[in-house]
Amino acid sequence: MLINKKVIIIGGGPAGIATAIQLKRYNINALIIEQNQLGGLLKNAYKVENYLGFPNGVSGSELTDIFSNHIIKKNIEVLYDKVIQLLFEKDKFCIQTCKNKLESEIVVIASGTKPKSINNIYDNNIFDRIFYEVYPLRKIKNKTIGIIGAGDAAFDYAMTLSEKNKVIIFNRGENEKCLPVLFKLAEKQDNILYLKNYKLIELKKNKEKLLSVFNQNNTIQKFTFDYILFAIGREPQLDFLSDGIKPHIDSLIKNHKLFLIGDVKNGIFRQASIATANGIEAGMLISVHPQNLKLKCF
Amino acid sequence: MLINKKVIIIGGGPAGIATAIQLKRYNINALIIEQNQLGGLLKNAYKVENYLGFPNGVSGSELTDIFSNHIIKKNIEVLYDKVIQLLFEKDKFCIQTCKNKLESEIVVIASGTKPKSINNIYDNNIFDRIFYEVYPLRKIKNKTIGIIGAGDAAFDYAMTLSEKNKVIIFNRGENEKCLPVLFKLAEKQDNILYLKNYKLIELKKNKEKLLSVFNQNNTIQKFTFDYILFAIGREPQLDFLSDGIKPHIDSLIKNHKLFLIGDVKNGIFRQASIATANGIEAGMLISVHPQNLKLKCF
Repeated sequence: MLINKKVIIIGGGPAGIATAIQLKRYNINALIIEQNQLGGLLKNAYKVENYLGFPNGVSGSELTDIFSNHIIKKNIEVLYDKVIQLLFEKDKFCIQTCKNKLESEIVVIASGTKPKSINNIYDNNIFDRIFYEVYPLRKIKNKTIGIIGAGDAAFDYAMTLSEKNKVIIFNRGENEKCLPVLFKLAEKQDNILYLKNYKLIELKKNKEKLLSVFNQNNTIQKFTFDYILFAIGREPQLDFLSDGIKPHIDSLIKNHKLFLIGDVKNGIFRQASIATANGIEAGMLISVHPQNLKLKCF
Repeated sequence: MLINKKVIIIGGGPAGIATAIQLKRYNINALIIEQNQLGGLLKNAYKVENYLGFPNGVSGSELTDIFSNHIIKKNIEVLYDKVIQLLFEKDKFCIQTCKNKLESEIVVIASGTKPKSINNIYDNNIFDRIFYEVYPLRKIKNKTIGIIGAGDAAFDYAMTLSEKNKVIIFNRGENEKCLPVLFKLAEKQDNILYLKNYKLIELKKNKEKLLSVFNQNNTIQKFTFDYILFAIGREPQLDFLSDGIKPHIDSLIKNHKLFLIGDVKNGIFRQASIATANGIEAGMLISVHPQNLKLKCF
């Protein structure tokens, strides 16, 4: 079935949610396409301390629930499906998802990031024990988990997991790259061990566990884990852009037909606050689009 | 006494508050200078429906209280004083306030907006009955108030005041310029009367009241009010910029020594969400400033 909408938002994280909520203020009903659950990467945050409105901090999953609740209150439609390809033909967008074909005049890409890939380190038979987000692991307990990385995500994920598990963080270099406030928190946890100069060189199955092999200053070190969590950086999720659309992206953006907002374009500025602001701004810009002038409200 | 700080933030609205909170994450203590109360123009909003985290909406004054609470929890210093002049001399900023003299390496201007001025319409002896924000009037009751304007602010302020007073909104033109959702709310209130094509031409004292004279399609119409509230637009509040600093502003901004954030630079995009995001981003940029590299955290 062909679904036709004025505005389609790809991604139901903070940026996409904010766009839909702002559009609703101008009586524009947008459709959000979300491949997993609403909330995007925010779901993973142990504690968000810089989203104004929550002076005591709030967990990413709580904040996600509150944002999702806003979507429900405003009757905003969400299609749970994965976008395969985005095309622009004859002055409109065509979106191919796993299960549907959609068309729209305006597309807001709020698709966030995907983990940077690591190649040639592990076999296909251990995929089910390797993760790139903490969210799917949030309910496990009494396990031993290795976290590869040394940035905010690595330490934040360690905080979440250490409540009921043992965690080792492996930094391939010398210096951690996370917020001092987060490092101090992690340092206080007995269940978190932090090791420097450990470079992962191999991962393989060992009965029901994972055997991980590290090079530590030219010495081989081995550890056995239940799970390995990679937090080694992320990159924009734009796999669905067709070759045909790529040369036109700048002009589509300039003409307010296409928007790229939130983590997908924010580089190091990946913050819930910034993503939601991007969404509010996109919603306002769409409402003053020449085609929507009858809805102009400021 | 000369106060010396690494970072000084001019203005304690959402943008300034967010900057200070983000800086605190990098152990940078900033000083906020606020001339009235924390919260800026946000205090005036009847209901904020597009700040994510509050799915049922929240009044501007409640949201301000929550933001202010964050400032208190994080032990952020606020100086209640009015900035008279901002200078840049010998590689540092000098700030002259009513009561103090301050110096800093970095200044964040989050000073918001001031009402557009109306000249030659009223005498000096009625200043105490004329307002440009609803906040100072929020506790009055059983009064009759005229609101001049037809944008979001006019209708939003009318909603606040109509709970306990009678309100007439005067639009000098034909079309209201507010959000449809807000217009519908106001329409339902018995205590709000909305008049089009009424141009205010005179305001004068009449015993303890205000006599207002309007031109309605070349007919003179008179009304008596307790208070008049102007909501006819706002412009950036930058009165404190010295002539000496003005030619250097672009280069100071480029070098991350000076930041202009929030309503003072956002034009029509005056939203709590966008202002707080500006503050988070400014805080992050300050933390990666060459002089602060030891604090670099991502």
